Amino acid sequence: MSPGGRWDARIDLVSQRPVPSHSGLPTVTMIGGGQLARMTHQSAIALGQCLRVLAGSPSEPAAAVCANVVLGSHNDLDDLLRAADGAVALTFDHEGVPLEHLRELESRGVAVRPPSQALQYAQDKLLMRRRLAELGLPVPDFVDLGGDADVAREALIAFGEAHDWQIVVKAVRGGYDGRGVWLIDGDADAALAVFDGAAGSAEGTAVLMAEQKVSMARELSAMVARSPHGQGAAWPVVETVQRAGQCAVVLAPAPGLDAEVAQCAQQMALRLADELGVVGNMAMELFETTDGELVVNELAMRPHNSGHWTMDGCVTSQFEQHLRAVLDYPLGDTSPSAEITVMANVLGAQEVPAMSMDERLHHLMARMPDVKVHLYGKDERPDRKVGHLNIVGRPGQTIDDVRERAERAAHWMSHGEWTDGWDLHADE
Amino acid sequence: MSPGGRWDARIDLVSQRPVPSHSGLPTVTMIGGGQLARMTHQSAIALGQCLRVLAGSPSEPAAAVCANVVLGSHNDLDDLLRAADGAVALTFDHEGVPLEHLRELESRGVAVRPPSQALQYAQDKLLMRRRLAELGLPVPDFVDLGGDADVAREALIAFGEAHDWQIVVKAVRGGYDGRGVWLIDGDADAALAVFDGAAGSAEGTAVLMAEQKVSMARELSAMVARSPHGQGAAWPVVETVQRAGQCAVVLAPAPGLDAEVAQCAQQMALRLADELGVVGNMAMELFETTDGELVVNELAMRPHNSGHWTMDGCVTSQFEQHLRAVLDYPLGDTSPSAEITVMANVLGAQEVPAMSMDERLHHLMARMPDVKVHLYGKDERPDRKVGHLNIVGRPGQTIDDVRERAERAAHWMSHGEWTDGWDLHADE
Repeated sequence: MSPGGRWDARIDLVSQRPVPSHSGLPTVTMIGGGQLARMTHQSAIALGQCLRVLAGSPSEPAAAVCANVVLGSHNDLDDLLRAADGAVALTFDHEGVPLEHLRELESRGVAVRPPSQALQYAQDKLLMRRRLAELGLPVPDFVDLGGDADVAREALIAFGEAHDWQIVVKAVRGGYDGRGVWLIDGDADAALAVFDGAAGSAEGTAVLMAEQKVSMARELSAMVARSPHGQGAAWPVVETVQRAGQCAVVLAPAPGLDAEVAQCAQQMALRLADELGVVGNMAMELFETTDGELVVNELAMRPHNSGHWTMDGCVTSQFEQHLRAVLDYPLGDTSPSAEITVMANVLGAQEVPAMSMDERLHHLMARMPDVKVHLYGKDERPDRKVGHLNIVGRPGQTIDDVRERAERAAHWMSHGEWTDGWDLHADE
Repeated sequence: MSPGGRWDARIDLVSQRPVPSHSGLPTVTMIGGGQLARMTHQSAIALGQCLRVLAGSPSEPAAAVCANVVLGSHNDLDDLLRAADGAVALTFDHEGVPLEHLRELESRGVAVRPPSQALQYAQDKLLMRRRLAELGLPVPDFVDLGGDADVAREALIAFGEAHDWQIVVKAVRGGYDGRGVWLIDGDADAALAVFDGAAGSAEGTAVLMAEQKVSMARELSAMVARSPHGQGAAWPVVETVQRAGQCAVVLAPAPGLDAEVAQCAQQMALRLADELGVVGNMAMELFETTDGELVVNELAMRPHNSGHWTMDGCVTSQFEQHLRAVLDYPLGDTSPSAEITVMANVLGAQEVPAMSMDERLHHLMARMPDVKVHLYGKDERPDRKVGHLNIVGRPGQTIDDVRERAERAAHWMSHGEWTDGWDLHADE
């Protein structure tokens, strides 16, 4: 490519405040004001930019820290257009933007990244399953439960019986963090109740599908990034530990993973990103079966919880990489900076502790000066992701040690209790 | 200390935009909207906060990225009070705030950190020299050139002759990045011209001092942080390479520095921070003499250019540490994450290159995917610090290799020229 003039001079900004781009560096818009946008903004700052965020309120995690906020809804085309105006690229903190809006933005020349053509597979699990199966990637057996309700109910019964009701029923759209996923575990009545409930829902539009339950040893995530130019980069494959359907812990790299299996997962993810035309990050969530095989579970096309460890454990964090990719900058080095990094989410306790978050942070820092804390500025609610923390292992430390410390630190931050029984007042 | 209630509930914010602190975490105000505040904001985000910045204009490096900006002047007491209102601590991106304003803020209960009692030594080089000499720390011979002009002129002549005019004349206040420092190098007439120029200046208030020029092997920096609680933490001692009086390169840790000398420098800095009652970061700039002795040169009480390497090369960056210190949080781990890290400043070229900064960044990323770039969003002007970059060395790499790459990358970013003659178009 020829140097000079990749984008024209300075960017016109559409925001509540004057934020001139003195450096002539580009502006990227992210739709959604959550923690992913918040952390992307940290990386944008290093690149000489300010992320522009479309947020629903000024108190959302990204809006609360970012100078360039457009208030509005991701369901409103006008709001999307306002947020996109003058930005070099438009990208996402979540999968919720209606596909027809994205197509309209594209038709008006907005650089939607990933493009709607790719993003539809992250929005629609049935479409994704079909495409993956077409491409020959390993997916569990599945069945479409849309269309005529009676036909679909028969299809569910046939599918359930064929798999001894060891199946999972899923909402085709909109599920996340365990929502929209029902583990049936042999109970035919439960499956039918889920189906009948969805069919009888107010709008009757909650389209479902069912999948064979995989005999799973553990869950893995293969994260990659891809630029419009076609460059791809893969981070080490990690193990993700889920609790109640939510990611709780990430072990990077996945302990004891066969090198060939890891490479296979990376190659599948890179190939898929290329086939789908993904731009930006893509997380491919995988099951490692008890037979040592890989099966693709979910796809996300954005920064992802399974990549938070890269903020402290890799040369290039997933947030910087996502920006590089959507800007068509060359991608950064994905090498880990240590042999082991463990990420643990801070998930809101069932009862918010009496001790303030600030005070808990104080005690955590006193006890573990090497923990890297990332808080999202959110109110605490049960099971809500309010932050995460990373511990980068040192030479000689085992994965078990680092994991125990990370989980102990995260539990302290959410519950105000030390899981090893350490007593704050023992020396008083 | 007892847990709970370190600060009362939520913070009232004084800003142009509503930024509720949903997490109940504290707000810190930084006076000055430059790059140090910009990078402190990045660390504030991770701690669940939003830095509040007092900036002169919305386009200053920190104001352009931060949601909580108070526009005003650091010379105006009312503006300072507005910026301080409701914040847990007030700290600085530069040394320019008048001491009388700081004392007034303190008398009104604002937690000024570092306190005026400490900060005065970073503002006034003569006061600093006297205090260091009192404390028995190694300083060059020096003389006060304030007071009656005729008496001071005689003092300068006597001091110059005693040192063969191997002296340095300095402005007592306000100098930085080589400004306010005159290397005399044996030329008595030059020294007297500086003196007469200052004495005859418009206000006649440019107070000068002179120091013996030290026979210097190299410059070092010992950075520490100290909390109000009295905890101190030292980063590894680094070598700073100056060009035209400005920091150009930092080698971390200082190559080949005797372990005992390094420890001595750290202990001097920790002791001094304690004696002066510093809160936050303190950089002690040192000369290593040709005899292997250490002499204290300057002090800064804030994040400092010699600590930028910690952003990518240490467990705890200087920006996070400064926040932890001014908040009286326990300090973070200062261990380096690699054996070698090199920082190089991106200093504006005499002529801004035709190729845009964006395009230069693109090419840099293509050639060096492991470089960590930190751009400040500033217009390019000759010698202006517009960014810096870090390269974290890998096992087996030498300091010379890493330094050459870092300097090559920084020169590319400022000049749009590769110092190794690499030709962009060679393959076209």
